[in-house]
Parts: sequence; structure tokens; C-alpha cells
Amino acid sequence: MIKKSLVSLGALLVLFPTMAFAEDPSAAQLNMGLNALWVMIAAVLVILMQGGFILLEAGSTRMKNAGHVAGKTIFTLGLASIVYWAVGYGISFGSEASEGLNKFMGLGSFFFSADVASVDNALPSSVFFIFQLAFAAVSLSIAWGGFAERAKLSAYLIFTLFFVSVIYPVIAHWIWGGGWLAKDGAQDFAGSTVVHLTGAIGALAATILLKPRIGKFNKDGSANEILGHNQVFTALAVLILWVGWFGFNAGSTVAIGDGFFGYVAFNTQLGAAAGAVAALLISWLVNGKADITTMLNGALAGLVAITASCAFVDPWAAVVIGLVAGVLVFFSVKFFEKIKVDDPIYALSVHGAAGVWGTLANGLFATEVLSKKVGIGGAGLFEGGGWNQLWVQFESVVVAGAFAFVASFIILWVVKQVIGFRVTEEQEIIGLDLSEHGNYGYPEQMKKAGTSV
Amino acid sequence: MIKKSLVSLGALLVLFPTMAFAEDPSAAQLNMGLNALWVMIAAVLVILMQGGFILLEAGSTRMKNAGHVAGKTIFTLGLASIVYWAVGYGISFGSEASEGLNKFMGLGSFFFSADVASVDNALPSSVFFIFQLAFAAVSLSIAWGGFAERAKLSAYLIFTLFFVSVIYPVIAHWIWGGGWLAKDGAQDFAGSTVVHLTGAIGALAATILLKPRIGKFNKDGSANEILGHNQVFTALAVLILWVGWFGFNAGSTVAIGDGFFGYVAFNTQLGAAAGAVAALLISWLVNGKADITTMLNGALAGLVAITASCAFVDPWAAVVIGLVAGVLVFFSVKFFEKIKVDDPIYALSVHGAAGVWGTLANGLFATEVLSKKVGIGGAGLFEGGGWNQLWVQFESVVVAGAFAFVASFIILWVVKQVIGFRVTEEQEIIGLDLSEHGNYGYPEQMKKAGTSV
Amino acid sequence: MIKKSLVSLGALLVLFPTMAFAEDPSAAQLNMGLNALWVMIAAVLVILMQGGFILLEAGSTRMKNAGHVAGKTIFTLGLASIVYWAVGYGISFGSEASEGLNKFMGLGSFFFSADVASVDNALPSSVFFIFQLAFAAVSLSIAWGGFAERAKLSAYLIFTLFFVSVIYPVIAHWIWGGGWLAKDGAQDFAGSTVVHLTGAIGALAATILLKPRIGKFNKDGSANEILGHNQVFTALAVLILWVGWFGFNAGSTVAIGDGFFGYVAFNTQLGAAAGAVAALLISWLVNGKADITTMLNGALAGLVAITASCAFVDPWAAVVIGLVAGVLVFFSVKFFEKIKVDDPIYALSVHGAAGVWGTLANGLFATEVLSKKVGIGGAGLFEGGGWNQLWVQFESVVVAGAFAFVASFIILWVVKQVIGFRVTEEQEIIGLDLSEHGNYGYPEQMKKAGTSV
Repeated sequence: MIKKSLVSLGALLVLFPTMAFAEDPSAAQLNMGLNALWVMIAAVLVILMQGGFILLEAGSTRMKNAGHVAGKTIFTLGLASIVYWAVGYGISFGSEASEGLNKFMGLGSFFFSADVASVDNALPSSVFFIFQLAFAAVSLSIAWGGFAERAKLSAYLIFTLFFVSVIYPVIAHWIWGGGWLAKDGAQDFAGSTVVHLTGAIGALAATILLKPRIGKFNKDGSANEILGHNQVFTALAVLILWVGWFGFNAGSTVAIGDGFFGYVAFNTQLGAAAGAVAALLISWLVNGKADITTMLNGALAGLVAITASCAFVDPWAAVVIGLVAGVLVFFSVKFFEKIKVDDPIYALSVHGAAGVWGTLANGLFATEVLSKKVGIGGAGLFEGGGWNQLWVQFESVVVAGAFAFVASFIILWVVKQVIGFRVTEEQEIIGLDLSEHGNYGYPEQMKKAGTSV
Repeated sequence: MIKKSLVSLGALLVLFPTMAFAEDPSAAQLNMGLNALWVMIAAVLVILMQGGFILLEAGSTRMKNAGHVAGKTIFTLGLASIVYWAVGYGISFGSEASEGLNKFMGLGSFFFSADVASVDNALPSSVFFIFQLAFAAVSLSIAWGGFAERAKLSAYLIFTLFFVSVIYPVIAHWIWGGGWLAKDGAQDFAGSTVVHLTGAIGALAATILLKPRIGKFNKDGSANEILGHNQVFTALAVLILWVGWFGFNAGSTVAIGDGFFGYVAFNTQLGAAAGAVAALLISWLVNGKADITTMLNGALAGLVAITASCAFVDPWAAVVIGLVAGVLVFFSVKFFEKIKVDDPIYALSVHGAAGVWGTLANGLFATEVLSKKVGIGGAGLFEGGGWNQLWVQFESVVVAGAFAFVASFIILWVVKQVIGFRVTEEQEIIGLDLSEHGNYGYPEQMKKAGTSV
Repeated sequence: MIKKSLVSLGALLVLFPTMAFAEDPSAAQLNMGLNALWVMIAAVLVILMQGGFILLEAGSTRMKNAGHVAGKTIFTLGLASIVYWAVGYGISFGSEASEGLNKFMGLGSFFFSADVASVDNALPSSVFFIFQLAFAAVSLSIAWGGFAERAKLSAYLIFTLFFVSVIYPVIAHWIWGGGWLAKDGAQDFAGSTVVHLTGAIGALAATILLKPRIGKFNKDGSANEILGHNQVFTALAVLILWVGWFGFNAGSTVAIGDGFFGYVAFNTQLGAAAGAVAALLISWLVNGKADITTMLNGALAGLVAITASCAFVDPWAAVVIGLVAGVLVFFSVKFFEKIKVDDPIYALSVHGAAGVWGTLANGLFATEVLSKKVGIGGAGLFEGGGWNQLWVQFESVVVAGAFAFVASFIILWVVKQVIGFRVTEEQEIIGLDLSEHGNYGYPEQMKKAGTSV
């Protein structure tokens, strides 16, 4: 039954001559291959998360803006890729900075020319680049939450240029690129701070400068609910993001090694699950109705919170971190409404509040064993490590948050002064699909709506 | 041209200290890594199938229920994860039961604490857990087909608790956990019975207790078609489920080994394809119109049917199994309409009828060579194995089906008596988005519809 | 803390006896496993691209055709799988043809029976088959762009039979199966010509024979814009296709080897990104509005163009190739409108024009080093290789295009004469959902629209 296969290595070497290793590879080469494959797949999963953002942002906003919201994600993903290639990657990981400068930023590797082949024992630089680029693009997409339904397209373009070349890469360097927070022992395994808080702070700067959407707040200060138009989109978005998060968190091991990546994925699943459950129950309890948007935010908040800690905590702690995140996001959304900050996609609560909580949670729950295994920082307060790690975590949240806010605010303030940040009132009312792009994203449905008025 | 990469293993060990194996790994460790990576990816694909269920269930129902239908999938995925972690996994695979008890259920491993690292030659327990959890969640999502458009949200919550902690895990233990059906030689490679039939039987118990949706059947006994609202969603759902099924079936090898997982994937593709083609043609032939819903059901039925047999049959048999499944699902849908059982998402036909067929098909088409290779059961009737395997397959369908029905029925009957299972008539008419969650999932479109009335 | 895992290899061999390699595998076996895993994952990513086509084609057309457009993708995927298994694969890669015949087509391996296990050093034939099938199905889905909104369902069925059994496989054999263009040194790494141009030419033949949709062109020759109904779908489509393209391009290494697949993915990302950016900017510049459809087409055009060249060029050239593709697609769409060829899904521009450009780009930018590494062809014009490679690329475009056009045209012309190719005018106006399938894909939304008229 088992007959000689058509596609023997010999045949494949003729048909597909890139098949390398005509000779048997060494263990080091196989190990490189295994790691390269895992990180490549993880990168693909993280890029897939942009599909989640398309659906989350489109589903959470109104039909008149749907084409704009969805389309600009593809455009900014493209632009971010070019900018990160030209500049951003070098600021994060370039190795030509002096020791003094390297504490604050990398230098070199601009217009990055990835190696064609991996050298012994190395992860291919091409794969490492794509993985890191995917993270930068996620952080950027989080920031768009603060721009939604009223920012000019040109503002998206300009913010992408600065955010992806400097703001995100500098913070990534501090924590992941060997910078000063890394030296202080900051634990942020896959980016509760680097990716999520940085993005959320960009959103905060934007939404403060843009001011709330027309109709969001009444004259008496009370808030109106501006419902998103499609909960199938938002629920599917959460599922896609959840799936992508396995690449995000477990891929951040950047190695297969002894299978530790599985443990990271295990904690990630528990954190997400606990967040969804807690958020639905708290909304049911407090409001008397099981609000779907809150529950979806809870799942995402659980994921955001476990992102920093997934490699540092025990499973029961992952559940606790997720539960707290789910409750937190419910009250955080209420809080931002109360202080009249308009947060259309809930970026400030989901990625901001939960990002802070997740980073701090390491300072509470990180275990000695896992901190040693990962090789950074030490045990948290509840694990006998005293206040030290909590302080370092607090420091990294404050410093990264402050830098992200000041830098984002300055750039967007200049945009506002020079070319204008917000569309006109009339444009906002007819919607950005028409004002920024000339056509509705849902032309038939919008026409029908118009006809029936 | 090939210059020293920035990301040498040395540099990575500084930046990302989780990179294990500073020394070259052994063949056993590499083999573990390869298996771990495959099963992790397969688990991700199976979790992605929940996106398929969101779209399938939402697309097959009406707009007034869309947010509810989509959102509850995320909620129950979260709840199922916690319940399976706390209890279900231990019932399926816990190793502390006495030999006598172990025939019927596992014990131990509650609140499962996955290993941080894999021990030699083992699949990481974290990865194995996620893979098994993903299967439990799929079985649960299949059961929701019987709840659609009229069950209370609280019933979803309670059913999840019992289904994921006991019903599914017990059946999984019987066939996959070393229980009594495994000892009898039952062949169910990836779960035509364990996952699909069990879920479908849960749906059957639910739909019997709930009774048909308002408007489904006329007084004279004839059935009305209650069309789902979005066939782009249902078609995309089928594609996502199809893709996820490569993880479902081929991942069930839980190893790379000699590449047998590819053969399993190959048969899976043939079965799905044959199901889609057969269903469209039979509908075209019988009804004079090529019905899309039937064709989509056919693809899924082919996938469900090949799930048990993908590792046991020759490619031509995979095609036959898929063709039969495609025809079967067409007549099965007619049958359930005739006996006035309302099956909104076609779970009874797609996962139930095709699940039974797929399991029995092993008793017809399993080959001696492949049964030996997989290491369970023997050749089927048409392959010279006599009636024995067919009988074992029949037994496992009947026993698993009966247990799933009785257990599900009791739980849901108690729910019905104590808190009520079905929403009020008024709530059903306005839709579950408003009645269970307070907002439409499509607020703009539903409002417009309202306005134009 | 690290306790003995439940799922040791021993336990797994009991529970899941397909776990092979009770003994440690050799380096050759591990290498096979690594390659098999990568190509399997790549195949899954390419099959996922069908989800992109469902959304792209549905989103680019009108609501009355949405169910038809989405559903037929699943049907033709199924039919194509059976046809490719029975015939097509053998025409591409069958090894029983005489040396003379083999220049033009393969022979043998009909009703392909994949090996159960891989032989030493080989990629499992099952995995190779699925990967190649996925490519054939993509080419077919591209051709549907020319059929959209007016072809009979039966024409889809018949065209699938011929395209997947002969047209595509013959061209694939010429370039990838050791045929005469391969011997001439044609560089088409992942199929700018084989997959994209072939599909686009099928679309061209179809759209010429079908003639433009009702309402597309006015009597004075000017064109009307027939807007697609859902830009969230089209944007999500582009993201899914982009993600799938990592399997498409980087998977075409069919090996992990020294990590070269990462370099291919890296160039792919740059090409796509540059295409999106260039297209949006050119549309903004020329039309004064940043058109989303153009930008999405630009991303796809970048991907199509880099497909042939991703393994042969430097990163800066990947950016240039993408930029040119983005500009090209903008003018190409205008061109086809001008010559009154109706191209509803932009297949002629995105896959045709960009496919030609991408193939020719090798003749300009291929480097000596990379051509040697891949093992086919030589350096391009700008890399000191003279005109030779450009000529070979030109030849392959012309020859493959001509064959695809003549063969497709003949088949569809016969269809037109014998059973009719286009639905009636009345059917086209009410939409294919009703005319071909008996129900709307969006029954509630279409009904409402009807009511409000």
C-alpha cells in the first residue's frame, strides 16, 4: 500500500529547487527551523488580528462610517509596514546606538534588509521583523479607537508616520529592546503596556483633542448611547482577536524550547474566559440586562490584562486577573462616560485600564519560579516578593504612559493647528464614507434609508 | 550578502530570555516540539471554528436575534473554558479513578494546573488541554442549534455548566479517555460521535422541550420556511469551519510522526467536497432549484461524516462517505420538518444524522491496514472484516446517543420547571436582542424597518 | 512544581495510538516533519483565502446577488477538489508521460491515492496534493470575477470541470511541473502567472462572452459605477487574502530549510503594503478623493505582483514592485472601463495587469544571488543580467495567457451556444439569488426594501 511517493526530496529539489538541506540538517538547524516556523505562524495570527479590528471598529460605529472605518485599517496597515521597515524597527532593535543612547532607543537597521538565510542558531531576521511589525500595527489600530467617526483621513496618515517610526518603537525598546525599563526588571511579556497601553494612550490624546462626537453628551452632562451598527461583527471580531492572541502571547516566547509556549497559551485562554464571564455577570447584576457589548469588552479586557502576566503567573492567578479585568472594564466605561470622554471603541477601558491592571498584576501574582524561568524581574507581592516588582511595574506604566501621551498629544495638536484634525459638523453628520471617500460603504442600504425618510 | 543576523540566539536570549535550549536539543526534544507546535496550531484552528458557529447561527436566524446569537457564543466559550478547566478535563482524562470507575469516567486533575515545561517525550499538558477544551466547546456550540431564537439566556448558562462538566466529558472518556467503548474497539477518530452526535443530541433534547418557534408550523401540520437573514455569513461560516476542520481531524493525530496527519487532512478535504457537490445536485434534481442552504449543509455533513473515518478509510471511500452525507442531509432536513421538530440551524441533520452515518461508515469502509496503523478496531464489512466493527460502531452511537439524550433532557427539563426555558411569546416576537440584552444587534437597520412600517 | 505530565508519550500512545515514532526520529524524519507541517499550514492559509474571495466578491456586488455569489464559492471549491483529485493533479504532476509529452503535460496519478506515510526524506504526498489543490481553487475563484452578477449557475459548474482538470493544470505543469517554460528558466515563484494571470484570463474570456451587466455602460459609451454593497466585507476580504498570502508565497518554498521562507514572507509584506499606499495616494491625487475600493485593489495588486518575484528580489525592489502595482491597478481599472469591458470584481486589473507586471518584474529586478539560490533563471535587466530573463518572463506571460484565453473562450463559447451562458434580462434584474436559487441571500433586507418601494 505504501508506495514510493511522487514527491520525494529528489523530485522536489527539481520542481522546487528552494528545498534546502539536501543533506540532513543538524539539531541546531532543526531547532532554528522549529522556532522560525512558530514565530512565523504567530506573526500571521497577529496580522489576522487586524481583521478583528476591522470588524470591531466597524461594528461599534454607525453605518455611515463603515467603509471608512474598515478601509482605513488596510491603508494604515500598509503605511505602518513601510514606516516600520524604513525607521521604526531600527529605533526598537537597531544595534548601532552607543551604550548611553541605547538605554533610550536603538539605532541602525533602517530600511531593514532581512537576511536571506538564517545563520546558525538564529531566528531568521525576516521572521523576527514580521513578528515585531505585527505588534506595532496592533498598537496603532488600538489608537484608532480614539479617532473614530470624526477624524480626517489625513490625520490618520500623519499619526501613522510618527507613531510607527518613533512613539511605539521607543517604548518597545525600553522594555523589549534592552532599554532602561528592561534593565530595571519590568515584566511585560507580550505587551499589556508596550502594545495596549501605548495604543490606548494614543487614543486618549486623540479623543481629548477631537472632543466628543455630535450627540454623545447632552447639555446637562448626561451621556447618550451611540450604538454600534452590527453586533455580529463585534462578536466575530472578539473571536478573531482571541484566536490571534495565541500568536500574540504564546508567540512571544519566540521559541518552542521545552513547550513553555503552551503554558502561556493556557493562561491566555483562562484570562480571556474569565474576563468574558465576569463582565457579563456584573452587567446582568448591576443593570438587570446581560449587555453584549460589555461582555465582549470583558473578553478583550481579560486578554489585554493577561498579556503582561501570561508567562509569570499560576493558572488560578490567570483566572483572577481575567475576572478583575472583566469587572474593571464595566466600571471603566461608566467612568469615562461620567468624565465626558468619548471612547467609541472602548479603547481607553479595554486596552488602557486593563493594560494598566495587567501590568500591575505581575507585581502581585508573578511567581519566583516563573520569573526565573523567563529571566526577568522577581516574585510579586502575593508570592512573597515584597513590593519591589509592583513598584517596577508601576514605574513602567507611568513612564510609558506619560511618554506616549505627551508625544501623541504634541503630534496631534500640531495636526489640529496646521491642517485640522476633525471633519466639519456637516461632514460628520453625513458620515465619513461620503466626506472622506465619496461613496457609502453600504450604498444600497444607505440609499434605502434615505428614500424612506 | 548574508551578514550576521541581529537576532542570533545569543541576542535573543538577552532580549527574550524564554528562548530555551541554549544547547542543542535532542531528537526527543525536537520531536516533542514538533508535536507540540502541530497540536497548538490545530487547537487554534478548532477555536477559530467558533467564528464559524457565530456566522452560521447568526446567518441562519433572523435579524432581531442576531446580537444575541453571536454574543452568546463568546460568553459560552468563556464559561465553557472555566468549567472544563475546573471539572470537565478531569472527568475526561483525570487518572485517579479506580480501574472499575475508569471504564466510565476519569477522576482528578480538577482546576487543572498545566505543566510549565514538557517532560521528555511528552506533549506539553498545556497544549493537550487547550486542544481538548476546543473540542468540548465545539460540541457545546452544536447543541445551541436546538436553542435558537427562543431560549432564555439563563438556560444557556446552566446547560453550559452541566454539558461541559459532565455530559461531554463522560462520552469523551468512554471513547478517547480509555473508557469502555475504547476497550471495545470503537473507531471515532476525531469525534463524529463524541463531538458531533453528542452536541446534536443536546440540540434535540432542547428543541423537543422548547417546542417549535412561533410560525414554524401551521395548524394543518405543514411547515413554513423561516429564512436565515444572511447567506454571506452562512457561506463564510462553512468556509471557516472547513478550514478549522483540518485542525479538528488532522490535529487528532496529536503528532507529526511519519506525516500521517496529511493523509487525514487529504481524506477530510475529499469528504467535505463530495458532501457539498452531492447536496447541491440532489437539491437541484429534486426541487428544480439549487438551494444554497442545502449545499452548505452538505459540505458540513461531509465534514461531520468523515470525522470518524478520516484515518481509517481509503480516499475513494472518503468520497463515497461525503456523497452519502450530502444526500442524507437533504432528506434528513425534510424528515425533521415532517415530524414537526424545529431545527433552526440544522444541527440534527448536519451533526446528528451525518454524525451517525460517519461513525457507522467505519464499520463498512475501515481498512485492515489503517485500523492497525491507528491501533484501534478492525476492518469494516466491505473490507473483509465482517460485521464486527459495524456492530461496535452501532453500539457506540446508540450508547453515546442515549446517554447524551437522557442527561441533556433531565437537565433542561429541570431548567424548564424551575426557571423557565423559553422566553414569552411577546419576547420571542420582538426578538431576543431586546428581550435578553436590551438592545438590537443591528440597531440602525431594525429602527429603519420599524420606521417604515 | 513541574510534575510528571499526564500526557506522556506512553499515555498518548494508549489514548491516541497514531502517535508514531515510539523511538526517537532521525534528523531526516524530523526535517520531513518540519516541512510537512509548514506546507500543511500554508495549504490551510491558502484555503482560507476562499473566505476572502467570498467576502470580496459578495461585497463588490449587489445585495440581490449576495447569496449566490457567496454560496457558489463553496460549491465550486467542493467541485474543484473532486475534479483536481480525479484529473487535474495528474495533468500537473503525474510522472507517467513520455519525455516528449512531459514538456506539455503530466500524466498519471488520476484519482490520486496519497501515501499513508511519508517515505524517507520526502514531503508527504497528501500534503503536497492539498497545497497544490488550494492553488488551483484560488485560480478558479479569480476567474469568477468575470462571471459576476449575470452568469448561470450551470456555467459555473461546467467551467469548473474544464478549468480545474485541464486549463490550470497544463499551465502549472509548464512552469512548476518540469514543463517547457521551466526548462526555459521562467521565474514565477508562487504564481503571478500560473495562478493569477490564468484566472484573470478566464475572467476576461467570460466577461467578453457575457457582455457587460445591464446598466454598466450608457448608450454614449460612458460608464456607470455599480457600487458593491458592503465595504466592510471587501476590506475584511483584503485582510484575509493578505494573511493567506503568507501561505501562498512563503509556503511555496515547500520547505523550512535555512529559513528562506521568512525572507519570502518579508518581501510579500513589503509588496502588499506598498501597493495599498500607492493606490490610495494616486486616487487621492488624481480624483481628489481617497477611494477605498482603489486602495483595496492596490493592496491586492501589490500581493499579486510580488507573488512571482518574492523569492528573487531585494527588499527595496519589493517595495518598488508594490508601488508600481498600486499605481498600475488604478489606471488599469480606468482602461477597462474605457474599452467597455465590464470587470465587476476588478479581476482583470488586480490579477491580470498586476500578474503580468509581477512576472515581468523578475526580468528587471531578479538578483543573481537569489536566482541561484532558488535555482531557476538568472539576474534581471537592472541587476546586470541583460535582457535574457526579461524575455523569458515575457514569453511565459504571452504563452500562458494565450493558452488560457483560447481554451477558456472555446469552453465558454460552447456553453453559450448549447445551454446558454447568461441569465435572462428579467432574471438579472431581480437578481441571481432568486433566479438561480429561489431565495434571497438577505431575505429580510430585500423584503423591507421591496415593501418601502
